[in-house]
This record gives sequence, structure tokens and C-alpha cells, in this order.
Amino acid sequence: MPAFDIKNITGVIPAMVTTFDENENFDEARMRAAVRFLIDRKVHGLYLTGSTGESFMMSPEERKRVVEVVVDETAGRIPLMAHVGAISTKLTVELAQHAEEAGIDAISSVPPFYWGFSQDQVYNYYSDVTGSTSLPMIAYNVPLAGLFGFDMIKRLSTIKGLAGIKYTATTHFEIMRIKEEISKDFIVYSGADEMAMSGLSFGADGIIGSFYNLIPEVFIALDAAVKAGDMEAARQFQETANAIIFFSLPRNPIAAIKRGMAWMGADAGLCRSPFGNFDKAGEEELKAGFRKLKAERKLEGVAFLDAI
Amino acid sequence: MPAFDIKNITGVIPAMVTTFDENENFDEARMRAAVRFLIDRKVHGLYLTGSTGESFMMSPEERKRVVEVVVDETAGRIPLMAHVGAISTKLTVELAQHAEEAGIDAISSVPPFYWGFSQDQVYNYYSDVTGSTSLPMIAYNVPLAGLFGFDMIKRLSTIKGLAGIKYTATTHFEIMRIKEEISKDFIVYSGADEMAMSGLSFGADGIIGSFYNLIPEVFIALDAAVKAGDMEAARQFQETANAIIFFSLPRNPIAAIKRGMAWMGADAGLCRSPFGNFDKAGEEELKAGFRKLKAERKLEGVAFLDAI
Amino acid sequence: MPAFDIKNITGVIPAMVTTFDENENFDEARMRAAVRFLIDRKVHGLYLTGSTGESFMMSPEERKRVVEVVVDETAGRIPLMAHVGAISTKLTVELAQHAEEAGIDAISSVPPFYWGFSQDQVYNYYSDVTGSTSLPMIAYNVPLAGLFGFDMIKRLSTIKGLAGIKYTATTHFEIMRIKEEISKDFIVYSGADEMAMSGLSFGADGIIGSFYNLIPEVFIALDAAVKAGDMEAARQFQETANAIIFFSLPRNPIAAIKRGMAWMGADAGLCRSPFGNFDKAGEEELKAGFRKLKAERKLEGVAFLDAI
Amino acid sequence: MPAFDIKNITGVIPAMVTTFDENENFDEARMRAAVRFLIDRKVHGLYLTGSTGESFMMSPEERKRVVEVVVDETAGRIPLMAHVGAISTKLTVELAQHAEEAGIDAISSVPPFYWGFSQDQVYNYYSDVTGSTSLPMIAYNVPLAGLFGFDMIKRLSTIKGLAGIKYTATTHFEIMRIKEEISKDFIVYSGADEMAMSGLSFGADGIIGSFYNLIPEVFIALDAAVKAGDMEAARQFQETANAIIFFSLPRNPIAAIKRGMAWMGADAGLCRSPFGNFDKAGEEELKAGFRKLKAERKLEGVAFLDAI
Repeated sequence: MPAFDIKNITGVIPAMVTTFDENENFDEARMRAAVRFLIDRKVHGLYLTGSTGESFMMSPEERKRVVEVVVDETAGRIPLMAHVGAISTKLTVELAQHAEEAGIDAISSVPPFYWGFSQDQVYNYYSDVTGSTSLPMIAYNVPLAGLFGFDMIKRLSTIKGLAGIKYTATTHFEIMRIKEEISKDFIVYSGADEMAMSGLSFGADGIIGSFYNLIPEVFIALDAAVKAGDMEAARQFQETANAIIFFSLPRNPIAAIKRGMAWMGADAGLCRSPFGNFDKAGEEELKAGFRKLKAERKLEGVAFLDAI
Repeated sequence: MPAFDIKNITGVIPAMVTTFDENENFDEARMRAAVRFLIDRKVHGLYLTGSTGESFMMSPEERKRVVEVVVDETAGRIPLMAHVGAISTKLTVELAQHAEEAGIDAISSVPPFYWGFSQDQVYNYYSDVTGSTSLPMIAYNVPLAGLFGFDMIKRLSTIKGLAGIKYTATTHFEIMRIKEEISKDFIVYSGADEMAMSGLSFGADGIIGSFYNLIPEVFIALDAAVKAGDMEAARQFQETANAIIFFSLPRNPIAAIKRGMAWMGADAGLCRSPFGNFDKAGEEELKAGFRKLKAERKLEGVAFLDAI
Repeated sequence: MPAFDIKNITGVIPAMVTTFDENENFDEARMRAAVRFLIDRKVHGLYLTGSTGESFMMSPEERKRVVEVVVDETAGRIPLMAHVGAISTKLTVELAQHAEEAGIDAISSVPPFYWGFSQDQVYNYYSDVTGSTSLPMIAYNVPLAGLFGFDMIKRLSTIKGLAGIKYTATTHFEIMRIKEEISKDFIVYSGADEMAMSGLSFGADGIIGSFYNLIPEVFIALDAAVKAGDMEAARQFQETANAIIFFSLPRNPIAAIKRGMAWMGADAGLCRSPFGNFDKAGEEELKAGFRKLKAERKLEGVAFLDAI
Repeated sequence: MPAFDIKNITGVIPAMVTTFDENENFDEARMRAAVRFLIDRKVHGLYLTGSTGESFMMSPEERKRVVEVVVDETAGRIPLMAHVGAISTKLTVELAQHAEEAGIDAISSVPPFYWGFSQDQVYNYYSDVTGSTSLPMIAYNVPLAGLFGFDMIKRLSTIKGLAGIKYTATTHFEIMRIKEEISKDFIVYSGADEMAMSGLSFGADGIIGSFYNLIPEVFIALDAAVKAGDMEAARQFQETANAIIFFSLPRNPIAAIKRGMAWMGADAGLCRSPFGNFDKAGEEELKAGFRKLKAERKLEGVAFLDAI
């Protein structure tokens, strides 16, 4: 049985990066350091081997190893979700069962993609995978894998064990609709970092995203502001976050996040190709760009900017 | 010179329906009644002959007539915007100049659509149309005509007279970005009714949409709540609105809005084909559906539901 | 009753350009000259006021005038089709009935676009418009207005009077499927100029397209070659045509076609904005480009290239 | 060094199915039987572990095993291509180098998908993978992974060792354009089974597709007819093939192909979930459907239909 009940897995949850070394091999030491860094920053949980975690670039064995390392390093201090989607039901079940044995608290999966599966095939996929463990399943709704319509979300919610959805789109009215027309207890994690404020306002239980690796303190403050009903403060935290996000997006964002973590002492390594990486000169240019952004936009209270 | 300065055209602005009679001809008397109804309900302005106004279903002469009738009936009490887009620059300029002579306060236009024009052609279109009158132009960003990217919005904002944007998409982080990276003075109207709360939170100056014809009181209350910083109240108004919106969307929403207005004494007539309309039996079924929705969702303070 | 039976309207049919003068007004004299030019070149029919004819840039009155002028100038020598689509059923019926009175042989229409109408609404549109005259209707399948799926084509084919389809997409297997699963008698016009050879091979009765205004002789020869079973000759004509098409596409193709006609003595005037036009210098550059293309690709037997 | 030169790998090449047993494990015996079956049917080569081969449902180890088994069973009688795409450059290189060692004649890959890589990242991917072996690379252009534009194809063609493209789209004018504007020597395989006739007419060197597992004899005859310039015969073979294809598409086509092979004595087993499979009753229904199709469409000379 998982240590954390899914109902208590809320708040700010980084879609954790996976650390690779200079030869693009999984770097266990760096991964452990990154886990410690994020726990120190008071994040409320971790979401492993998802889109940000470069999952579909890894073999099943590598994905399992990442999960094992993070479980070990976390040692039960915060809840852990593992994305186990692998298109094939068989491989996904294998990863799901491994996650359960490893000590993960909840599993998650994008729908099977590439071939354009039918709604029935997608339903069967979630039914089969969810039934293969006793862990709660969080379906992962993301344009990269094909968005679910509301009717499909409703249908998926009838699967025993399918406890909620990671909703990575800006159509946040659906979050409200899920809570009203499906159930208040159906967990929703909002996944569009640049609209975290809106996701939470429309009723999301938590937020899962890439930039929570880099600026967890900003989003933790934003989350607290929304909960306190202080929308003006929330708006300002979102503005700070978005300045950083829109600067990063055209510049290999996952690699940039990893560099930013390094500047705070938690070197998260490199990305796997075909994602690009920063060489020495590129990293200096990136730093200079962030420094300029900090000055121009008067960004304060952002740890990685202060660390440059 | 327009009676209202664009900077003061804010708040809740219905994208006004156009009233047609049983033969699908423009119905002047019904249009005047609808204008009086909306002014009575304290809307802050009107947006004419747009998507909700069935503009692309009317000849240029009909569109001009609608504008003239509304200007006459409004008599300067509230500000008026007219959508003048007609794909062709020549026809759009003709409609824009007519709107100015008729006494409209601001013009607006979707980009030229259907043929897939280049970014330069779209820019030239806005430059030519905006330059043809002294009225402020509000570019209309809507998926139906092809969304602008942020860089294009920035480029359009450099056109003298192009004062703002009607932003009908859920990517509300762009509203914040416009205010930060273009100018606080570049006007933004949020246009996704089901996310009005979010549009306003991210910095929109006003909201323009279809359902403000039917439930203006709900959105006026929502707008006030956001301004007062009472997000919990805002959330509840949005929830009420969305229950009505999602019930209506699969049921010929423009025709349903017109029926709802009729139930409050302002019969807005029929839609033009190929939009469908409700016959007697269909209207009764619609009423029954709304009654059931009101009971199930415990909707209170909604004038048209109370009028059934 | 139309002078030509739809079953006999086959072969190479230019989607005729509409001629505008320097002030973007319809230019009757140039239109008449263009009609004479195309009839001299032995085209098998004309398709008026469609996408190439800039229909959605004109008022209903202008569209009617274009039709009247072409009917008068043609004087029954070749069959004429008029595209009458105008989104609104009411306006389309008006244009359809005018076309019938004017002496057109067949009408055609894109489905209603912009608002995203349902399949039932599209069906009703075609049913209403087709039923409003005794002319055969050719539905116009084109990505710009949203493609029909095969099942929708089958459903439309059941409308009395809906005689065929202008199929402007490269999925030519559907042409074969229409002939097999709907009826050999359901007329199909292939509309992708750059794949005319394939459209005809898969069973199209004729071809309708933009470049048949400019290089009718090439496509008439291609059509004859396919009918004679000489695929190698057909391939060479297609190759010649495609060299010209791919050179033109990034250079305002409709305006380029009009310039090319001018070089052959049939000045087809200008395009309406936001389409661009060629100024003197631009036209010389275009000529130089075509001269270079002719030399490099060794293009022979192309009248407009020989006329430069 | 590969046994077959890429210039001689032409004609009809099945995108070979991968055989799985009742537990969804790779079934070596069935794979060997399927290879023998296809060689007996005189196919001109085999394309392994691509979209039809359910590649993205298998672990790297499983993919390697499939390649080894087919190489062993083929024993040099016909050329073999292996699709090695795995999103990650690192994993793809591993598969590519394994393919070379195993004795494959050419490698192929879809572009990296899911994350939406930039054109530069895609270019680097092909450059890195192609450079990692001495085998020729055939880039795989398919909507499922995001189509290349013509300019990208031109750019890819400059990579040393990138010898051609598998072009799985119906825009066949691009095949002609590749031959004219890139090089006659750049190999093109057409990949839309339902338009094989057109792909070959526009200049493709060969055809690679799913249904060549099931009805190789029809496509071998079609290929010969096109080469002989007998378009009427080619058209009839395409018509026969398309009747079978359009019947199969809505019925789990890969599973249906595997059943059809079983009826001819080469049981290709099951598909991996979430693809569906036929149970006993479903298989009988499928057979009945094919029998009815054969009678209604008077399909002759189709081995698997004659075998039912």
C-alpha cells in the first residue's frame, strides 16, 4: 500500500527532470542531488519519467532505474508519482507493476499515441493498466499525445482505480466542469505552468509542471496566495514565473532548467539528443540573458537568478 | 470623433446577436428591443455584427443597416464597437467608413480568412483598414479565422490606431504577456465566456462574448467580484455561467440565446440558416431542459431561468 | 433548361480568375477578353467566382455581374459553372437562382464555413440550395472550407440534383471509391492542378483548377495523353506544369497567373487586397524568373513562356 | 558491406508485420513462417519493425531480436531494410549499429516525434544516426510522426549516406519534384497503399506498405502494369486492392492482415494491445465479410480471398 493517499498529494509537484551525464547515460549521483534539492525547496511531491523527464527517450530498464533511485533517495519524505506510459499495454503494465514494487504512491500515463488509437482502445488501455496494480492512476491529458474530450474524461473516471487527471492544457473551464459534473473527489492536477494561477482558481488540487524544478519557490508562493484568496499576490508571482518561462521556451527549455539548477548547486546534467544542450559559451550567454531579464523586469526573490 | 474613448470601453460587452424574422430578414423592431433590454441590464457596451452577430451571413448593405439601427436606438448611452471584417480590404474599408459616419466608437475585425493569407498580407490588411478611419481598431483574435502568435500581435500593435485586441482563446497567459511586453495601454478584451474569470485575472480590460446577451447580470457580478478581489464569489458566478453555457453549446447556442431573451420579453428572433432554430416543440424541450438544469445545479439569480 | 448536360461537362475547365482594375473594381472589358482568350485556347468549360475567382472578396451584386458578363461573352459556346457559395443559405439561394436565370449550366458551392457547422447543417445547406433551382449542383470539397469525409460525400450524393463533386485534395483514392461505391454517374472533377494526371487516372471526369487559366494547352495535352493511355507523355506534361506551379506558388500565384495572361495579350488585371499584386519592377522580376526557369528546366511548348 | 545496393532495392516491399503469440510475446516460429511466405510470393524486399511492425510497442531488445530472426530466415535471398527510429538519438544509433552487424541492407527512421523537435534538431538526428553506420538511410515521411516539407527533404538529402525517403502521404507531386529538383538518384518509396499507382506514376522507385503482407500478388501485378505503361490494367489492380483496403481499415487492419495471412497458411499471430485482435467469432465474421465483398465486387485473383 502506498505511503501517501492520493487525496493528500496536492500542491506544487515538479515534473522532475532526468539527469544524464556527458555521454547521455543516466547519472545516478546527479539524480540524487536533484531530489535532495527539490525536497529542500519544500516541493509537495515529485512526478517522475514524464514528458519533462524524457521518458520516451529511455529504455524500460533505464526508466525503472530512475524510479528506484528516486524512491530510495526520497525515503518516504514526500509522495512520488511515476509516469509509466509506453504505448504498448504490455510494457506499460510492466513499468506500472515495477513502480508499485519500488514503492511509488501513484502511477500516471499519457494515452497510447503515434498510431491514432480509437476511443475504445484508449479506454481499454487505461482499464488494463489501472487494473494491473493497486496504485491510483492519474490519466495524463496533453496535446503531445492527443487531448481527451470531456466525454472521454467522464468515461475514464468510471474505471476503478483511475483517481484523477493531469490536465496539461489551457482550457481550464474543463477543470471546473470535471469537479461539477464528474466528482469533487476526482483529482485534477493543472499542468500549464504559465497558467498555474488559473488552474488553481478553477479548482485544481495541485499543479505539476517543468518549471517547478527551477523556480519551486515562486510556484509554492503562488499556490499559497491563491489558497489565501490573495489574487493580486498570485498575479505577481505568475508574472515573475512567466517572464522566466517565455525567456526559456525558445532556448531548449529542459536543458535551460537543468543549467539553472546547476547554478544553485544541484547540477541536473544534460539532455538526451535530439534535445540540444548548452556548451560553455552557450551557458554563459544563457546566464547573461537571464541577468538582463532580471534587471529589465525587476525580478526579485528568484533563487536561481540570485545565484547567477 | 467618437463619443467614448477606447480606454473607457471596459467591463461586460455582449457580442450582440442580430435579430432575424421568420423569413430570415433583418428585424429592426426586434433589434431595437434587444438593445433596450441589454442597456436596461446595465451592460457596459455593445459589440455589433461579429461572429455571434452572424456577420458573414449578411450582405454589406444588411450589415450597415444593423449598425445604423443600433446606433440610433442606443443614442449615445453606452459605447458601441462594430466588427467590419469582410475578407476583402476594399469591402472592409467600406464598412469601416460607414461605421464611422454612423457614429460607432471603435471598429474591429477578424483577420482576412479562407485563403490562408501570409503574415505580411494580414499586416497590410490591418494597416489599410485602420488607416481608413479615425476610429480605434480592435484586432479580433479567434481560432475560427486563425489565431495570431504573440510576435504578430506585437507587430500589429505598432500600427497607428490599432488600439487593442479581442482575444478569444483560452491561452490567457498571452494577455499578461501583452500587458508586460507590449504595453499596459494596449487594450485587451477577453472573449472566452467560460473563462471570463481567468481572462480578467490575467489583466483583460473587459470581456466580450455571446452569453452576455443572455445572462449579463451573472457576468456583471463576476466582473465586479474579480475587481473586488473576491475570487470565491467570482468562481461561483463562473460556475453558474458555465452550467448554462455547457448545456447550451450542443443545442444551437445562438438560437438558444435568442429564445432565452424572448422568455425575458426581448424576443431576439431567429438565426439564419444553416444555423438551426427551435420550433414550438423544440422550444418547449429547451425550456424543460433549462428548468431541470436550474433544479439540479441549484442555479439562483439567473433572470432568464427565473422567467421560464 | 441549361444548354449543356452536366454529363457532357468534362475535360479541362479553368477556375476562372476575376479581373479587377487598378482601383480594384470589376473590369468588364478585361473579363470579356479573358473569356475570349480561354475559349480560343479550347478549354472545355469555365468555372466562375470560385476560390481562384476571389468570390468571397466580392459583394453579392458584384458576383452576379461577373456571371452575367461571362454568360453574355461566352454566348453558349462552352459550358459554364458558377460557384454560388456564400455561407448563408439565403444568400447562396439568391446567387443560385440568379445563376439559373442568367443562363449558367451548373452551380457549385463550398460547404458553409467559418462557424464550424455540423454535418446535419451542411447537409441541409446543400439540400436547400440544390432544391432552389433546376440546375445540377457540384459540391466543392476543399481544405480551405473543411474537407468532407467519404461518408458525407455518400450522404450528399442522395440529394436530388446534387450531381457531383469538385474534389480539391490529393487523396485521389477517394475518386475511385466514389465511382465504385457511390456511382459511376456521380461526376467528379479533380482539383489539384499539380496532380491532374493522378486525378484523371483514378477516374475523374474532368479537372478544374487555377493554372488552367495560364497554361491551358499543357493540361489539354495532358488530359488527351491520359485518355490515350500514354502515361509517359502525361507525366512529361505534368512535369512541365509543375515546374511552373511550384515556381509561382510562393509568388502570389493568382496575381502571377493574371500577369502571365497579360503577356499573351489577355490582361486579366489585378487582384483584390489583401492579395498582393506586382508593380512594374515586380513584374519584370517575375518575367526574369520565368525566363530562367524555362531555360533551366528546358520547358517547351508553353505559350506564356514563349510570349515573354 | 550490405549484400544489396540501395539502388537495386525497388519494387514491392511489404512493411512487414511482427508476429506475437497469445501472450503478446514475439513469436519466432511464426515470424520465420511469415518471411518464407512473403519470399515465396516474390516480394522484392522486406521493411522491418516500422509502423506496421508495431515497433514503438517493443523494447529495444525485442526489436533487435526481430531483426536477427528475419535476417537469418531470409539468408540473403532478398534485400532487407530495418526501421530503427526510437525518438532518442542514442537508442536509435544502438539499433542502427545492431542492424548493420546483423546484416541488414539499409536503415530507415521516422523523425523524432512526441516533443515537437525543431527542424535543426531533426536534421541533427538524421545526421547523427546516418553517420553511425555505413548503411544507407531512408528517411521516413509519415503524418503520424509529422510530415517534412519539401525544403526539409532537400536539406536532409545533403546528409552523406541519406539515400532516399519513404514517402507515406498522398501528395505525390512531391515525388516528381524530388526527382526534378533534388536528384533522380535520390530513392523514393511511395507508402500510401491505396495510391500505389499514383506513387509509381509520379516516379517512385518502389512501394512500401502494410497490405503488401496480405495481397503481394496484386501489387506486384500493379507494379508490372505501370512499368509496362498499361494504366488500364494498373487501375484495375488498384481497384481490387482498394476494395480490400477500405473494407479492412475500420476493422483493426493490422490484425486483419495477420488473419488473412493465417488463412493462406502463414499464421502471423496477434497484435499487441492496445491494438485489438479477433476472437473466434470475430474471425468468422471477418471471413464472412470478405466473402461478401469478393462476391459483390467480383474480386478475382486474390489469393487470401480464394483461400477462405
